[in-house]
Order: sequence, then structure tokens, then C-alpha cells
Amino acid sequence: MSDNRDLRIDRQRLMDSLETLGQLGRKADGSCCRLALTDEDKLGRDLVVSWMKHLGLEVKVDRVGNILGLLPGSETLPPVMTGSHIDTVATGGKLDGCYGVLAGLEALRTVKEAGIVTRHPLAVAVFTNEEGARFQPDMLGSLVYVGGLGVEETLAAPISGGSTIGEALARIGYAGSEEPGSIVPAAFIEAHIEQGPILTSGVGRIGAVKDLQGISWQEVTIQGAANHAGTTPMNLRRDAAWGAAQVICFVHDLALELGGSQVGTVGSVKLDPGLINVIPREAVLTVDLRNPLESRLQEAEQRLAGFLETLAVETGLETSLRPLSRTEPVVFDDHIIDVIRQSAELMGQPYLIMTSGAGQDAQMLARICPSAMIFVPSIGGISHSPLEATNPDDLELGANVLLQAMLKLAE
Amino acid sequence: MSDNRDLRIDRQRLMDSLETLGQLGRKADGSCCRLALTDEDKLGRDLVVSWMKHLGLEVKVDRVGNILGLLPGSETLPPVMTGSHIDTVATGGKLDGCYGVLAGLEALRTVKEAGIVTRHPLAVAVFTNEEGARFQPDMLGSLVYVGGLGVEETLAAPISGGSTIGEALARIGYAGSEEPGSIVPAAFIEAHIEQGPILTSGVGRIGAVKDLQGISWQEVTIQGAANHAGTTPMNLRRDAAWGAAQVICFVHDLALELGGSQVGTVGSVKLDPGLINVIPREAVLTVDLRNPLESRLQEAEQRLAGFLETLAVETGLETSLRPLSRTEPVVFDDHIIDVIRQSAELMGQPYLIMTSGAGQDAQMLARICPSAMIFVPSIGGISHSPLEATNPDDLELGANVLLQAMLKLAE
Repeated sequence: MSDNRDLRIDRQRLMDSLETLGQLGRKADGSCCRLALTDEDKLGRDLVVSWMKHLGLEVKVDRVGNILGLLPGSETLPPVMTGSHIDTVATGGKLDGCYGVLAGLEALRTVKEAGIVTRHPLAVAVFTNEEGARFQPDMLGSLVYVGGLGVEETLAAPISGGSTIGEALARIGYAGSEEPGSIVPAAFIEAHIEQGPILTSGVGRIGAVKDLQGISWQEVTIQGAANHAGTTPMNLRRDAAWGAAQVICFVHDLALELGGSQVGTVGSVKLDPGLINVIPREAVLTVDLRNPLESRLQEAEQRLAGFLETLAVETGLETSLRPLSRTEPVVFDDHIIDVIRQSAELMGQPYLIMTSGAGQDAQMLARICPSAMIFVPSIGGISHSPLEATNPDDLELGANVLLQAMLKLAE
Repeated sequence: MSDNRDLRIDRQRLMDSLETLGQLGRKADGSCCRLALTDEDKLGRDLVVSWMKHLGLEVKVDRVGNILGLLPGSETLPPVMTGSHIDTVATGGKLDGCYGVLAGLEALRTVKEAGIVTRHPLAVAVFTNEEGARFQPDMLGSLVYVGGLGVEETLAAPISGGSTIGEALARIGYAGSEEPGSIVPAAFIEAHIEQGPILTSGVGRIGAVKDLQGISWQEVTIQGAANHAGTTPMNLRRDAAWGAAQVICFVHDLALELGGSQVGTVGSVKLDPGLINVIPREAVLTVDLRNPLESRLQEAEQRLAGFLETLAVETGLETSLRPLSRTEPVVFDDHIIDVIRQSAELMGQPYLIMTSGAGQDAQMLARICPSAMIFVPSIGGISHSPLEATNPDDLELGANVLLQAMLKLAE
């Protein structure tokens, strides 16, 4: 492979691909809306498949709509795979997911055009419904790919609006025939925007992602008593909003106290009845806790549960906790991380060994093959927004690091 | 008047009247929905007017729909007036407002049937749109009656749905010809359910209401920055929900610290975008502060404003405050309070000199004539609910205290 160390992707072609895909489902505010299995998602899929076919890749679509584009190697071996997703949230940017797919496609284009045939085949994947914005769970396609969820169960699951996932796949022409996961990669690398502010603060232009936070989503319900805001003395109140405020402060303080990579967020609070002159009867809030260490994440969950019990005893409010979603932390493969690190060094650029705070398809692939991720900086740490952006130099650099890492792994 | 000290209202007739009026606009959950100037409000008005006419009262309807029923006195003097409202919130009970009107009507029935002619005329009033549930402001009819809002301005004001207040009054047949406030009462007493838990805790069966809390409604906006809940370290966050929690805790602690009758409520909190995995960009919350002392209410408002400034400096969140509504405390007339007290003593029942936490029509009438209120206990302190209830013994007692107080004032 030493011959190919000077190989570089075509920056303009990468930027053009991102821009072309990003125009599909674009809204007036500049955001992209290609919710999974909608007409807009179909437009995006059709475009990427047309590019794959134009490049001469063998395109396979599996039963849950995951798309694989394969470039043969010199030997009959499992492929070195890259990829991500092209579905978006309702107000997405043009990079989240798409960058991983199109940087991968650009890497394969570069290899093919250079006339290089690697020992392992190369592959680029587009996984179905990573965002989970239209229907749950998120990371659906990659979850099914690695056997974490049954195909039949997935196809029969309802989508709000009356159809099932199976019907929605058939409607847009992506109910494929391949069995998900029938091709087990030799290795998987996903390139992605960081979606956070760490790289953008100047500590590195490339992230070699060593692990991924475990994510605990829970719903907290606080039951008090609705009463007149004017006529009910403070000492006779059972104020659900005040209980909710205690929980928000606790989650914030807990994350600071546990330190490290622990984060805690209350993103949604709903008060009932929610009127200016009525003491709230009920508060329902979401708690998002994340830590790359399972033991620490469990500690955070236990501390929250304990706090809610104490709050109930001390205030007369009723508190309850309902799990919504839970993923354990993922530790990526040391060898793949090392290959990414070497590629960044080859490019002469500063890199950071780091943790992903967001869930990604790579965490699913890590269950069946050695996996890791490459991060490029997100300007301002912003994603899921029309303001989502990355410096073109960084997009180019990330794709070159991916290219070199894939060449190395496919040797 | 000493001859009439044994005069008592007809308990069954009062209960029947409350039940008959309460059936109009009744919903499946048992609540009453007679929003101001709707068809249901018209039904209620027609019923009460028919009772007034049946009793032989002179019925006058003014230009904003306030209804007066007058029983002549032996001299041409200003009337001793009672009354309240019969409009309800969307999920009202059958007592709020209606009790004041029907206890007043029952008092006049009792006087008339006993063949008593008082020196002053007696009057019972039904004021338009006390609740403000369908259109603002609340206490509209009594506000116009005392000259606090112009008639033309009121009639031209829009109601959501396309019409104006004037059109809505004409539609239901209550665009009267009297000039609001042309009859200035000699005194005004409003009977009302307490809508709070003080009397029901056993300290008295009758409240002689000496004052009414000033009410300050403000909207607080906290601006932070939306960011990914997983990838944004705690120290780089500007979390609007956390800011909102600080405000909720401050309002609660402030009310406890100021003590006395000070109350503080955050009844509504809206987070944007309000998603489980996004740090909220913005929180908009309402703050309801009440105190019967204007100086203390101003202190509470100033302390809140100061807290928001400090919060902004210390956290990097932007905070702002918008006034929504402000009424000064009302101090009722010492003589009227004393007459109510004497009536309760005459009935041999424990009474409490107390403060009203809610806004009432009597606070408007207090601007033009000596006024006060009689409270009866609300079971559980509940109102604006199908569960709103008062013991029939207390309803009877309150009407008798009202009857005796009006006889005394009309001497």
C-alpha cells in the first residue's frame, strides 16, 4: 500500500456531492428535511444509488432498505466498509450522516479512478432511519443489520399515519431482497461531523473516536395538586412545577459532580394544566444521561432514582420514572483507532483521541466487526440545524483520512 | 331593622336555583361551560332575568350587558347592591359567581315576600365576563361599570373568531341601552365561594373579606443556546431549561421569605425546541405574584427583576421580563366589613376577617362605593373544576349573612 500514500480525494467532487444531496428536501430556512422513508428520503436514496451505479459499484438493497455499494477486491474476502445514513431530522443540516456516506463514496471513486484494486473489497453503506425522527428506534437499519432487531418485527412495526415500515419501504421502492447482515465486514469506519464543540475549539482537526457514550433516556412524572395561584398559601401547595425545577437542578448538579464525560439534560418539560394562575397538577420531563463508562452511567441513574424518592418523601409530591431508551457505552476497536491515527499523522494534521456523545451507526456495526469513527469539526458545535457547517478544508481532510485508513485496512 | 333580625332566606329555593342555573352548559364531566357571550351564557342570563322579572324587580341592561335587578326602597336613594357574575371558565363549577348572584336574588326574594320595604332600594347585579376565559380583560363588565374602561372601546374590541364584543352582545340580545355606572350604589357586597383552602380548614364558616391581593403577572424569557445533549460538555452549555428551573426555585423561595400573604406561582413553562436530546434554546415562563400590600408586591417584583439580572451575569443566559397584567391591592370599606361581621355574629357563627387571593367584581365596585365581600368555604379549596363544592349549610349561612348585612345597610 505504500504506493498509495499520496492518493487524495477530489475535494470539489466531494463538495458538489454534498451540495447536490443537500438540495433534496431543502426548506425555506435552509434546513434539510428528509425524514426516513418519505418521498424526500426516496429522492436522496435514488441520487446516491445512481452515483454508486455510475461508479460501477455492485448495489445491494436489503429487506429493511439498507443500501450497500461494493467495489470488488483482488481476493474473495469480507469488505472493508464505510458509510452512515442520509435520512435527516425535520430541521437537519446537509452534513449529518450524508458526509459519512459521501466521503465514503468519494474514497471509493478515488480508488476506482486510480485503477487500484485492494485485496479486500471496499463497501459504502447507507443505513435506514438512523435519526429516528419519524419513527423509533433510531439507528434502526444498522441495528437490524447486526441482528439486534428481527426483520419481520421491524417490517410490521407501525409508522404514525397508518402504514408499517414494510409498507413504507415498498412504497418508495426500497424493500430489497438481501438478508440484512449477510455481508459481515472485515472492518467498519464511519466518518461523521462531531456535532459537538470539542474539535472546533482548536484541539485537533480530526477526531479518532475511541468510544461512544452510553445513553439513558428516562421520563420523570411529578404529580402534585392543581390549585388556585392566588388563594392557596405556599405551605398548602403541592406544586408539580416546583418539583420539576428540583429535578432539573439535580440533573445539572449531578453531571457536574460526577465529572468526566458525564452529561445530563432535561430537554422537555410539560406542565398540566399550564395556566398562569393555576398551580400545576403534573409535570412530565425527560432526562438524558450519558457516560462512556457503563458503571458511571448506572451510578447516575441510581442517583436520580434516589433523588426522586427523597423528593417525594420530603415534599408530598408523587414521583415516578419510566425508561424510554437505554444503550450501553461502546468501546471501539484499538487497531482501527490506530489506523485512523496513523492516517491523520500521514496527512500531517493534529488529531484527538475522543469520545462520541451522540449515537451513531458505527456503534451497531461494532457488535459484529472491528469498528471506529472519524470525526471532523462542527463549526460552533451545531448540528440538527440549518446552521450546521464544517470548514471545506476539514471535510476534505476527513475524507482523505478515511481513504488512507480504508486502503490500509484493505491491504 | 331590629324587627327583621329573624328573617332568613329559603334554603331549598336557593339550592334549587343554583342547581337549575348549573345545569345550563353542563358537560359530561359535570363541569359548567358558559363562556361569556356564548349561547350558553345567553341561556343563563335569560334564566336569571326571568327570575328577576317573576319577583317583580325592575330589570335594566346596560350597554356592555351588565344586568341590574332593582327592588324599590321607601326613599329615592342609591341602592344597596349585591351581585357577581354567571359566566364560567371552560371547566367551571356551578358556584363561582353564580352563588353571589343567586344568594343576592334569594335575599331580595326574602325581603319582598316578607313585605319589607327598606329605606334604600336593593339591587342585584350580573356583571359581564368576569372570568376573562374567552376574551380579555377579566372583570370586564364591572371595570366598565366603574369607568375603568370606555364603553365604545369595549364594544369595538375583537373576540377570537371574528366578531367584536358589541356584536356578540347584540347576537345574544344583551346589548342594552343603560349607560354603565349610571346607578352608583350606596354600598356593594359580593358573596362568593372562597376558592381557597383557608375557611375549609376549620377556622371559620364565614369570611369577612377585608382586602384583595394585588396581582402581578409577568412573562420571563430565558435565552440560551440549543445544542446536542450528548456532545456538549456541561461547562460549554447555555441551558435555558436550567435557567427556568432557577427562576421557579427563586419565585418559590421568595414567597416563603417574604411571608405573610405573599404567594408566587410559575404555572406555565414552554421550552424550545423541547426535545429529549437537545439542550433548550429558550424557556418562556409565567410568574404570578400576589400580595395584599402594594409595597410588598413591588418588593417582590423588584427582587425577581434583580434575580434575573444576576442570573444573566452569572450564567451567560439572556433574561427578560415582560409585564402581562397588574392590579393593585384593594382595601375594602371598614364599615361594610363591620356590618358583615355583625351579621355573622347575629347568626352565631365563627367568622374570619380575611384576604381574597382571587380577583373579584367587588374590587372594581370598591372604586365608586363602599364595598366588601362575604366568603363561604370551598371544600378542598377547589374551584374552576367540576369538583367545586360548598356544604349547603354554608351556602345557606352565607346568604343569610348577606341578607342581614343588606338589611342593615339599607336601613
